[in-house]
Amino acid sequence: MLLDETVRRIRPVDARADELARKKLDRKTKPRRSLGRLEDLACQVAAARGLADPPLPRKAIVVMGADHGVAAEGVSAYPQEVTHQMLLNFARGGAAINVLARHANARVVVVDMGVVEAPASSPEILSRRIGPGTRNFALGPAMGVDEARRALETGIEIAGSLTDSGFDLIGIGEMGIANTTSASALAAVFTGATPSEVTGRGTGIDDATFEKKVQVIERAIRVNRPVREDALDVLAKLGGFEIAGLAGVVLGAAARCVPVVVDGFIASAAALVASRLAPLARERLIASHRSVERGHGIVLEALGTRPLLDLDLRLGEGTGAALAMGLVDASLHVLHEMATFESAGVSDAGA
Amino acid sequence: MLLDETVRRIRPVDARADELARKKLDRKTKPRRSLGRLEDLACQVAAARGLADPPLPRKAIVVMGADHGVAAEGVSAYPQEVTHQMLLNFARGGAAINVLARHANARVVVVDMGVVEAPASSPEILSRRIGPGTRNFALGPAMGVDEARRALETGIEIAGSLTDSGFDLIGIGEMGIANTTSASALAAVFTGATPSEVTGRGTGIDDATFEKKVQVIERAIRVNRPVREDALDVLAKLGGFEIAGLAGVVLGAAARCVPVVVDGFIASAAALVASRLAPLARERLIASHRSVERGHGIVLEALGTRPLLDLDLRLGEGTGAALAMGLVDASLHVLHEMATFESAGVSDAGA
Repeated sequence: MLLDETVRRIRPVDARADELARKKLDRKTKPRRSLGRLEDLACQVAAARGLADPPLPRKAIVVMGADHGVAAEGVSAYPQEVTHQMLLNFARGGAAINVLARHANARVVVVDMGVVEAPASSPEILSRRIGPGTRNFALGPAMGVDEARRALETGIEIAGSLTDSGFDLIGIGEMGIANTTSASALAAVFTGATPSEVTGRGTGIDDATFEKKVQVIERAIRVNRPVREDALDVLAKLGGFEIAGLAGVVLGAAARCVPVVVDGFIASAAALVASRLAPLARERLIASHRSVERGHGIVLEALGTRPLLDLDLRLGEGTGAALAMGLVDASLHVLHEMATFESAGVSDAGA
Repeated sequence: MLLDETVRRIRPVDARADELARKKLDRKTKPRRSLGRLEDLACQVAAARGLADPPLPRKAIVVMGADHGVAAEGVSAYPQEVTHQMLLNFARGGAAINVLARHANARVVVVDMGVVEAPASSPEILSRRIGPGTRNFALGPAMGVDEARRALETGIEIAGSLTDSGFDLIGIGEMGIANTTSASALAAVFTGATPSEVTGRGTGIDDATFEKKVQVIERAIRVNRPVREDALDVLAKLGGFEIAGLAGVVLGAAARCVPVVVDGFIASAAALVASRLAPLARERLIASHRSVERGHGIVLEALGTRPLLDLDLRLGEGTGAALAMGLVDASLHVLHEMATFESAGVSDAGA
């Protein structure tokens, strides 16, 4: 089956490409490693791609939208119809992700993974609906294991088709009213943190709603009894279609040696799901930013990644990923274009 | 005189423009303030420029180079000739700042403020030499007060000529072997921190050199007895020509309502000098990144700014400023291009 096959195909990153990129950077006219994490980024891309001198990437950001049955518990500040409305906004190019991706020279790929109301068909929206939103996981599983698997495989297929078209840097972003509730529940189960440690204000809820949100997550874990070691079980019980789909994108990209730029809290939760299904996928993740969402730090730590930007973002959609793609490009420009000590006639301190 | 006149001309930023930009952002299709510091950045530019809807800026990065007599104390890992060699590298376009500025669409303005060996004249290097490097401040003042003033006024003039040419976002960067020693000394005096609290490894010195560097700074402060409340006195005794020049650029830009993107530790020390000469200049500063140089956090705190990037950079040249300029552009793209709740037909949660 596609999922299992993809997980098996993910190889460790290429340590030799990493080392060659590092050596090339060490000959550039600057104290060694003085560009810090920008140099690490170039080396990480080299290692992920298996290319000592990776070309400037063709960039795509996959933005998946879906609805969540748990919205019925009143855990969000926004009505559920906003998921659908925002997908249409993405399709028309008016959302933040469109603006930021345009200037990052990244294609936006909008995917309906299952909003309650199917958007008017639009050539700009890929329809890959698993169902009309998940079920309310405060009462039982959000989806069946077969649905979780289908959503994962949808993401794998999308990543495969993008890499087939030459895209070699993929960002992941999302839209789904109430999906921070799902991400917090997944984070709690996978990291062992308590729900209150990984629950935040999402799009901006008040104290009472926040309390309710924590209780809903506690209840969901109690009711569903997810098995932490079985990532597919956890995903099916507490996840969302877009979160499962994005986890699939991570797996599909990793299997093709393509690095993935992870957006904020929810995308990071999807990356966490992927890393529990395939630990080797982790090394191909680039964490774009540290969001203000409370659980994000814990999830980033579990992923072993340190974010590039610290901008107090809490929007999602892939906006942080779009911003961080500019840094990936910058790191490769340095690798490609800087003079060496020899070519520039600059004295080197050695070491 | 130009310096005093410029300081007098610096006005508070425009609170009304700030508020109008915020209101415009609040109508965009996203939860209010969910783009966090990216939104703040757009508002800061609006406030600094005095324009509710500032256009995309024309960007320049002023990179000033100079030599430091204190290099004779053996405080750097690199020989002094590297300052000169790197100015030529900047002129030929092979340095990190050239690469990063090119892709940030920023003009690099290279200024020789006084390297020991004057670079071969090049149309790419503005010669504004105050002298052949400063004197060794471990033994007495680095420069005279008249020289400090001339260096400041040189920076003011360069900022003025750039704004006259339509540049409305100015970055500051530097090159000068041993200039972290000068920046640390300035930081210690202005913030009241001990030299060891604000001294770092610069381009990469070993433990013994680090100890010596701290002792040199302690000696310099003892010998020179700078008067903290007299910023010009402190600058003359412990500064460098490029640091003074960049402080002048900050003042000149602020007087023209142009925001300044500050690079790393040394550029931040220059900004600190400017803010002690003209406290109102502070509000027009954009801190680009938090460097690994030890004293940087203390200087940023004294400036009341929080950096945008956390990339462990320690190169200088304006490299962090070039990277951060991409974020300034992104913030203005959001302000200019995003759809509003009304135009996109998206439900708003209100407040």
